[in-house]
Amino acid sequence: MRKDWVKSRTGNVTQMHHARKGVITGEMQHVAHLEHLEPEFVCSEIAEGRLIIPANIHHTNLEPMGIGIAARCKVNANIGNSSLSSSEEEELAKLNICIKHGVDAVMDLSTGKNIHEIRERIIRNSPMPVGTVPIYEAVERVSEIHELTIDDLLEVIEIQARQGVDFMTIHCGLLQEFLPLAAKRMLGIVSRGGAIMAQWMAYHNQQNPLYTHFDRILEICKRYDVSLSLGDGLRPGCLADASDEAQFAELSVLGELTLKAWREDVQVMIEGPGHVPLDQIEMNVKREIEVCHGAPFYVLGPVVTDIAPGYDHITSSIGATVAAYAGAAMLCYVTPKEHLGLPNLEDVKQGIIAYKIAAHAADIARHRKGARDRDDEISRARFAFDWNRQFDLSMDPETARKMHDETLPQPSFKEATFCSMCGPKFCSMKLYQEVPSKA
Amino acid sequence: MRKDWVKSRTGNVTQMHHARKGVITGEMQHVAHLEHLEPEFVCSEIAEGRLIIPANIHHTNLEPMGIGIAARCKVNANIGNSSLSSSEEEELAKLNICIKHGVDAVMDLSTGKNIHEIRERIIRNSPMPVGTVPIYEAVERVSEIHELTIDDLLEVIEIQARQGVDFMTIHCGLLQEFLPLAAKRMLGIVSRGGAIMAQWMAYHNQQNPLYTHFDRILEICKRYDVSLSLGDGLRPGCLADASDEAQFAELSVLGELTLKAWREDVQVMIEGPGHVPLDQIEMNVKREIEVCHGAPFYVLGPVVTDIAPGYDHITSSIGATVAAYAGAAMLCYVTPKEHLGLPNLEDVKQGIIAYKIAAHAADIARHRKGARDRDDEISRARFAFDWNRQFDLSMDPETARKMHDETLPQPSFKEATFCSMCGPKFCSMKLYQEVPSKA
Repeated sequence: MRKDWVKSRTGNVTQMHHARKGVITGEMQHVAHLEHLEPEFVCSEIAEGRLIIPANIHHTNLEPMGIGIAARCKVNANIGNSSLSSSEEEELAKLNICIKHGVDAVMDLSTGKNIHEIRERIIRNSPMPVGTVPIYEAVERVSEIHELTIDDLLEVIEIQARQGVDFMTIHCGLLQEFLPLAAKRMLGIVSRGGAIMAQWMAYHNQQNPLYTHFDRILEICKRYDVSLSLGDGLRPGCLADASDEAQFAELSVLGELTLKAWREDVQVMIEGPGHVPLDQIEMNVKREIEVCHGAPFYVLGPVVTDIAPGYDHITSSIGATVAAYAGAAMLCYVTPKEHLGLPNLEDVKQGIIAYKIAAHAADIARHRKGARDRDDEISRARFAFDWNRQFDLSMDPETARKMHDETLPQPSFKEATFCSMCGPKFCSMKLYQEVPSKA
Repeated sequence: MRKDWVKSRTGNVTQMHHARKGVITGEMQHVAHLEHLEPEFVCSEIAEGRLIIPANIHHTNLEPMGIGIAARCKVNANIGNSSLSSSEEEELAKLNICIKHGVDAVMDLSTGKNIHEIRERIIRNSPMPVGTVPIYEAVERVSEIHELTIDDLLEVIEIQARQGVDFMTIHCGLLQEFLPLAAKRMLGIVSRGGAIMAQWMAYHNQQNPLYTHFDRILEICKRYDVSLSLGDGLRPGCLADASDEAQFAELSVLGELTLKAWREDVQVMIEGPGHVPLDQIEMNVKREIEVCHGAPFYVLGPVVTDIAPGYDHITSSIGATVAAYAGAAMLCYVTPKEHLGLPNLEDVKQGIIAYKIAAHAADIARHRKGARDRDDEISRARFAFDWNRQFDLSMDPETARKMHDETLPQPSFKEATFCSMCGPKFCSMKLYQEVPSKA
C-alpha cells in the first residue's frame, strides 16, 4: 500500500514535514486507525515531535506504526548476528518469531558476517520498521577504530538509508568533555556505539564527529525519512552508575540535538537506560520528557537489579513496565541471554513475551482505550471454564495449552470445571458457582 | 537453638506478648542480627504490630525470620499436592528447591492425599516458617462443605498448631453480607477458602463462624504462637474486579480483627490481592497499611494483566515489585503454571527466582542498608571479565553458567574480554577499557 503513498514525495519527505504543513499522510491515517485516534490528532502529535512514524520511503513493504506517548506502548526486539554466533538463516528465523508474536519494531544489530545481506533480507521481509546502528557496519570496514572518518560514517548511513532502514541509532550526544565523567563510574561505558566513539575521540583528541557533523546526518534523514534514535552512549551499565552526571550530561545534548533535528523536520526519539533502580525510573522518564521537549522515549529495560543474569528478561520487564507507565513510548526488549551471550530463537521468544506483557500492563495502567478488553474476555472464558478460548486469548497460546495439558491432556478436560492445581473438590470458581442464590 | 529459647515459655507464648513487656527474645535477637537492625527496634516493631516473627514454639528446627516493613522484603513459596497431581516425595523435593534458592517461608497448601503426613515432613525439614490454610484439611474430613462445624475447624487448627505450623491463613473477614457484593463481579470469588466459606454461609444462612468465633482461634494462637495470616477471601481474580467494594469491605473487617488479635498479643499479617492493574497497586498497599493499622501486608503478586497464562510468574513479579516498593512486607510467589495446573519442580524454581528478583529490586529501591552490595560486586566482576565470579554472585549460578557456556564452553573463555553477544571486536567494556587515558 505504501508504494502509492510515497511515490510522489520529493525534497523533504518526512512525516514531520508533512504534519507541520497539515498534510495527513497515508501513514498517519493508518496509525490513527490502529490506535483508535483521530488522524488530525496523530498529525498534530507528529508536528509537535511527540509521536514519530519511522517509515523510510524505500521500505515500501512496511506497515506503518507510531511511537509516542499518545499511542499504545511499543516493543522493539533486537536481532542480528555476532562474529561468534548465528547465521543469516537463524536471524531470519528470529524475524519470523518477532512477526508471529506481534513485535512492533526490530533492530538489526549484526556485527558479524554479511551485515549488508542480512539487513537486506530483514528489511524486505519485515512489515515492522527496521532500525540499525550504522557505526557497527562502519567499524567492520576498518581495521582500527581510529581510522574511521566522518565520511565513512556518512557513507554507511547513506547506504543504509537508501536500503530502507526506518530508524537509526546515532551516538551523537556523547561529547569529548564527558569522558572524565564516565571514568568515575563503576562500569564506564557499556554502549557499544558509545565505547567506539570514546575510543575515537580519545585517540584523535577531537570532538565527536557525529555531533559536529549532525547537520549532514539530518540531510540524509530528510531525503529518505529516516527517524533518528538518539543513542545513549552513556547509559548506566549497573545500578551504581544510574542517573549520574555522565548520563544526564549526554541527555542534555540529546535535547539540544532534538531541537536541531526538528528544525529540519526530522523525526526523533531518545534512547534511555539501561540499569536503573526502581525508585529512579519515573524520575528518569519525566526528565527525558522535559529535557528532550517531549520527544518519544525509547528505553532498554531498565534492569532493576544486576544480580540475575539468565533472568534479565524479567529484571528488565519490571523496569520497562514502570517506565512505560511513567510515559516511555517504546521498550527495547532484553532476553534471558543478556550479559551472557547472543540470544538464540528461544531467548528471543522469551524476551518478546516478557516485553509484550510489560507494554500491555502499562497500557492498561495508563487507561488507554480498549486496553483491558482482552483481559476481560479471557477472564470471562476462565469463569466459563472454556479452556480452549482461554488458550486462544493468551499471549502465547501454545505454551498455555502445553502447561495445562501436562497433567490433564484428555480432550474432556477442556470443559472441566477445574484444573490440576486444585482438583475437582477445591476449584474456587467451581465452589463459588455452586453457592446457592449468590445474590 | 530454639529449644532452649522456648522451653521456659508458658501461658501467652507469643513474640508480641514478650515484645510488649519489653522482653527481647532469642528470636528477636536473631532477626535483628539478620536484618542489621537493633534488637530494641525489632522488639518495638513487634510490639506495635508492624513486624511479626512467625515462630510456633513447636517448630524448634526453625531459623526465625521477621516479616515487616522495616525488614528485608520476604518471599513465600506455596507447595503442596492436589488430588490430581504430585506426591509426598515430590513435595519434599519442592521444599528442598525452596531451601536451595533462599525462599523465606513456605505454605503447604496440600489438598490431596496424606495432608497430615506431608505437613509433618515439611515442618520437620523446613528451617523456614511453615504456613497452612487449615480449612483445606477440614474440608477433606467431610463429604459436603455444609457439614463443617466450627468445632471441626477449631480441632484442625489446634492439631496443626500443635504440630508446629507457624502461620495460618484464616478467611475470617468474608462476612455473609458481602456475598451480594461478590455477585456483582466478573469472577466472583477466586480464593478457595473464600469460596468454601461462601458456600457454608449461603447454605446455613449464617454469619462466617471464623468471624463469630475469632476469639477461640486466638486462644489457640496464643498457646503456640501461631501468627495469623488474615485471608483475603474476596481478593480480585481479574483486573476488572480489582479494588472493588467487595475487596475493601473485607479489608475493613480484617482491620477490625487485627485490633482484636493484638488485644490478645497474637501476631497478624494481612493477605492481599490478586489481580490488580499497575496504577492501583500503590493505593492498595497504602490502604492496607492505613485500614489494618500497620500490620504487615502479604501480597499474592499481584498479576498486572490477565492474558499471559504460562507467564504469570512474570506478570505477577512486576506487580509484586511495585507492591514491595510501596511497602508490602512479604510476597507470595506465583509460578508459570498458575491458572493452568499444579506447579512441578521446574515451575517452583521459576516462580522463586522471579520473586527473589522482585523482593530484591524493591529492597534496593527502598534503600535498605547493604541491599545493593551484591549488585555492586557482580558489576565489578563484570568489568573485570571474571566470569566465574559473575556466575557465583548470580541469583541462579547454574543457569547463568549454562547460558554463557552454550556458545563459549571452553575454560579459556572464563577469562575472555567478551562473550558471544558482541564478540571480541564489539564488547563495549573491552572497547572502553582500551580508551587511551580515560580521565
